[in-house]
Amino acid sequence: MVQLSEDILHKVIKKRPEISHKGTFGRVVLIGGNQQYGGAIIMSAEACIKSGAGLTTVITAEKNHSALHARLPETMVLAFWETTMIYQVLEQADVILIGPGLGLDKTAITLLKGVLKTQKAQQWLVIDGSAISLFSEYNLSLKFPSQTVFTPHQAEWERLSGLSFIEQTDENNRAQQALIGAKIVLKSHRTTIYDDAVSYYQNPLGNPGMATGGMGDTLAGMITGFLAQFEKGMDTIGAAVYLHSLIGDDLSEKNYVVLPTTISEALPRYMKKYAIERK
Amino acid sequence: MVQLSEDILHKVIKKRPEISHKGTFGRVVLIGGNQQYGGAIIMSAEACIKSGAGLTTVITAEKNHSALHARLPETMVLAFWETTMIYQVLEQADVILIGPGLGLDKTAITLLKGVLKTQKAQQWLVIDGSAISLFSEYNLSLKFPSQTVFTPHQAEWERLSGLSFIEQTDENNRAQQALIGAKIVLKSHRTTIYDDAVSYYQNPLGNPGMATGGMGDTLAGMITGFLAQFEKGMDTIGAAVYLHSLIGDDLSEKNYVVLPTTISEALPRYMKKYAIERK
Amino acid sequence: MVQLSEDILHKVIKKRPEISHKGTFGRVVLIGGNQQYGGAIIMSAEACIKSGAGLTTVITAEKNHSALHARLPETMVLAFWETTMIYQVLEQADVILIGPGLGLDKTAITLLKGVLKTQKAQQWLVIDGSAISLFSEYNLSLKFPSQTVFTPHQAEWERLSGLSFIEQTDENNRAQQALIGAKIVLKSHRTTIYDDAVSYYQNPLGNPGMATGGMGDTLAGMITGFLAQFEKGMDTIGAAVYLHSLIGDDLSEKNYVVLPTTISEALPRYMKKYAIERK
Amino acid sequence: MVQLSEDILHKVIKKRPEISHKGTFGRVVLIGGNQQYGGAIIMSAEACIKSGAGLTTVITAEKNHSALHARLPETMVLAFWETTMIYQVLEQADVILIGPGLGLDKTAITLLKGVLKTQKAQQWLVIDGSAISLFSEYNLSLKFPSQTVFTPHQAEWERLSGLSFIEQTDENNRAQQALIGAKIVLKSHRTTIYDDAVSYYQNPLGNPGMATGGMGDTLAGMITGFLAQFEKGMDTIGAAVYLHSLIGDDLSEKNYVVLPTTISEALPRYMKKYAIERK
Repeated sequence: MVQLSEDILHKVIKKRPEISHKGTFGRVVLIGGNQQYGGAIIMSAEACIKSGAGLTTVITAEKNHSALHARLPETMVLAFWETTMIYQVLEQADVILIGPGLGLDKTAITLLKGVLKTQKAQQWLVIDGSAISLFSEYNLSLKFPSQTVFTPHQAEWERLSGLSFIEQTDENNRAQQALIGAKIVLKSHRTTIYDDAVSYYQNPLGNPGMATGGMGDTLAGMITGFLAQFEKGMDTIGAAVYLHSLIGDDLSEKNYVVLPTTISEALPRYMKKYAIERK
Repeated sequence: MVQLSEDILHKVIKKRPEISHKGTFGRVVLIGGNQQYGGAIIMSAEACIKSGAGLTTVITAEKNHSALHARLPETMVLAFWETTMIYQVLEQADVILIGPGLGLDKTAITLLKGVLKTQKAQQWLVIDGSAISLFSEYNLSLKFPSQTVFTPHQAEWERLSGLSFIEQTDENNRAQQALIGAKIVLKSHRTTIYDDAVSYYQNPLGNPGMATGGMGDTLAGMITGFLAQFEKGMDTIGAAVYLHSLIGDDLSEKNYVVLPTTISEALPRYMKKYAIERK
Repeated sequence: MVQLSEDILHKVIKKRPEISHKGTFGRVVLIGGNQQYGGAIIMSAEACIKSGAGLTTVITAEKNHSALHARLPETMVLAFWETTMIYQVLEQADVILIGPGLGLDKTAITLLKGVLKTQKAQQWLVIDGSAISLFSEYNLSLKFPSQTVFTPHQAEWERLSGLSFIEQTDENNRAQQALIGAKIVLKSHRTTIYDDAVSYYQNPLGNPGMATGGMGDTLAGMITGFLAQFEKGMDTIGAAVYLHSLIGDDLSEKNYVVLPTTISEALPRYMKKYAIERK
Repeated sequence: MVQLSEDILHKVIKKRPEISHKGTFGRVVLIGGNQQYGGAIIMSAEACIKSGAGLTTVITAEKNHSALHARLPETMVLAFWETTMIYQVLEQADVILIGPGLGLDKTAITLLKGVLKTQKAQQWLVIDGSAISLFSEYNLSLKFPSQTVFTPHQAEWERLSGLSFIEQTDENNRAQQALIGAKIVLKSHRTTIYDDAVSYYQNPLGNPGMATGGMGDTLAGMITGFLAQFEKGMDTIGAAVYLHSLIGDDLSEKNYVVLPTTISEALPRYMKKYAIERK
């Protein structure tokens, strides 16, 4: 077991190469935000853009486009019904996030199945929120290529793995993870990240001021943004998890509740600090 | 009579438990904002979210969803016509606020009656703005369980209680409150809170810079957010009332008019200050 | 001729009475913002609200409601077609502003005629932007009660008065103003305010960084907000004009262009400074 | 070859004339932002307005109007289908920008052809993003009057000029530019500006933190805003390019990724600094 520390940030967050263009930093597709939960995918998009992803398209219910652009003109948008265009942007994506505020209806399951079916060997897929519930809801197969990341909180993990809260020991979680194949970011008081490798990562940070709606959507957006830019793998996921909590802990010094959007706001400054090469 | 003071803040605003999740800090439903008064429920939502409520769903006219999400992606939304979903979220709510900008039409009275009918013993209900007027307008019964809070200003209290401004003495107000059963937050120059207990609370703070549209919507949102997280009862209502005025007084040192949204903006910082345990 | 100075601010901007409520600071109706020029009435509303008006309803094309609420939830809204409601809010208004971004179509002239027809003796009316052009366009009668304020720039004044730029001398302007009866705020490099009294006011402030779209809409909103709260008359109009330029001059110290919304943003702080009673 | 330096800013950014009005600083029309790419034209508009253009109309898909006004009420708007109005505003424009987020569909090509056909001798035209691709896509003639500016990145320039990346030497670029007639702002790691004059400008600034979606839209908006106000020509284009990178470099000192909107935000302050006359 590896205890995450600031080292992971120095290791993962690279100084950007001088010769580069926006494509260098990844093409991302974010899928979520139905009629009711549009805010979720907006928060994911904020975290993704502000962590530095190169080009971000958000696929969300059309009613959410205006609020998204009012906050974040840096995104491109598609509605759920624009099927042809959706498959075009998915085709070119380096990283895909599906789930924040997606809901559980027919549109949601169709999109999820489409994404799973078209995922290519070099594409990473982050599965969060509603999309996790869709697996139990629709009894989908739980066997994934290793470039897949699940980000359940404990209740979602219970439904996904069949492990009750009390059964969610590291040993059991690792056994389940091995069966599923995907990387698991198990969100809790102390988030743990399981991979099919022997080791797994634990996040020592986080605070109860972060227990508020949207915090998970923001983390999912950060993981996606990090995977778009940095070496795709456990370390990069670990860095996103650690930085999310580190900023949250700093903000909680002066704030009773830490609003998720304030974490995204702080990302460019924090990432700069760790990108500077150490002697 | 108890004069509210900073003590109420220290007493009510608890340091959050280390082991907790967003559900720990309450599920809130806010109902209001018709075609004309959408801003009212947006301001309530801002106060509620920024005071730290865990999960907040706003039921409002669909035309308001975009502006709400542009300001506050942390909320979930439902339109007035999504009846099935409305009853699902009401079922799970810890605290419900109805009224800010709700209006007086058929939709409004239908929603109010639905909320009153389905209120459960453990659910708190805050009745503000238009919803107060609906009681006089539609001649509804004024007998409530004690986990109900009315937040009338003096003219609304007149219509509700039948007491003219000049008759609104503490004695008369307390007598009326005893008949109604709900807690009464009577908003005025010096807001007073009446309960069926012997004592009642008076707020010594507040200033005329706060006399601007939306100030009451913000207070209603704060009371709701506080009830979602802290011990449900008079002290918690008193703390919300006191803090609302305290922040307003501080802001008025440098601002001719105190915009309601600037009070909400300051909430996380102020609440942190009082949450730190005293020696 | 009176040269405006800081004295006018100290004289007009009163410390608010301790016992007061939002109605004390005026009910305002702002009419403008068609499909094309929605931003204009949004900027007027910002200036009006942030100068401290008590209750503000904005009548504007429905497509503008969402952007208005996203920036300013403190406003209430009506669409142009909500005729019954429009006449209800006009009935209760203390001050009405018509014109910013209103356009020149049938809806616009209908609204203008409706406002002129229903204006009551105690209601002040500010006529700005498109509404000024409507008078020449539709050949409307130019005879007004003295509680009317026109805010033309020089080209609008030419169309309204028939005076070419070169003929717009103080003498000619005053003669024309006497015929029209309304107060004239003639906007230019050095704005002048004409009344049917002997004296007229000149504004010594202002700078070319303020020459940008929306600056007039902001001034119209400030005049309206000031008339809602302070003694209705020339001094209050003069104070709004002076403060608008004073803030603009201060902002231009550090900004090449002074965006109109940055003036509104600064209003609460500036007004506080002048509201403090002098020894 | 001229290496751009701060001198170009001092030379181009003039102190504004005391006697002036918003028309003095240019009438601008921005065309772009379809259903999917609305954010692009919003970012162009922010750069244009905040660089000080006098009056800005944005022609964009109607679904983008609300987000645009929520961020920037200083703009006027038209939808793509408002043909009569579009030709009216084009008629009066000093500078036109077409392309950011415009897309490649029938509406896009119709607008582009309309703009090219109606461009007048004294009107400058900036062609960016999708509009550049439309030339190759629809095989349009590549012969332009010298008051035309193309702003391709290297891949767009390849499609436009037929020069592969490796063939894009200064010599070849200048030869191609001479054939086309328009000025070319070739965006890359070190942006170069080609004119039919002998000299061409190179920008020594810029950093990889700026490699993110929307950076080009922002530059296009700045070039347009600068051309609206300052002497129309190479120096003014050079100043916009240089300042865009200069602000980007400063922001990158503290930010891992430089969001395009943060560059626009800083424009009024930076431009002020350079507008102050040097001894």
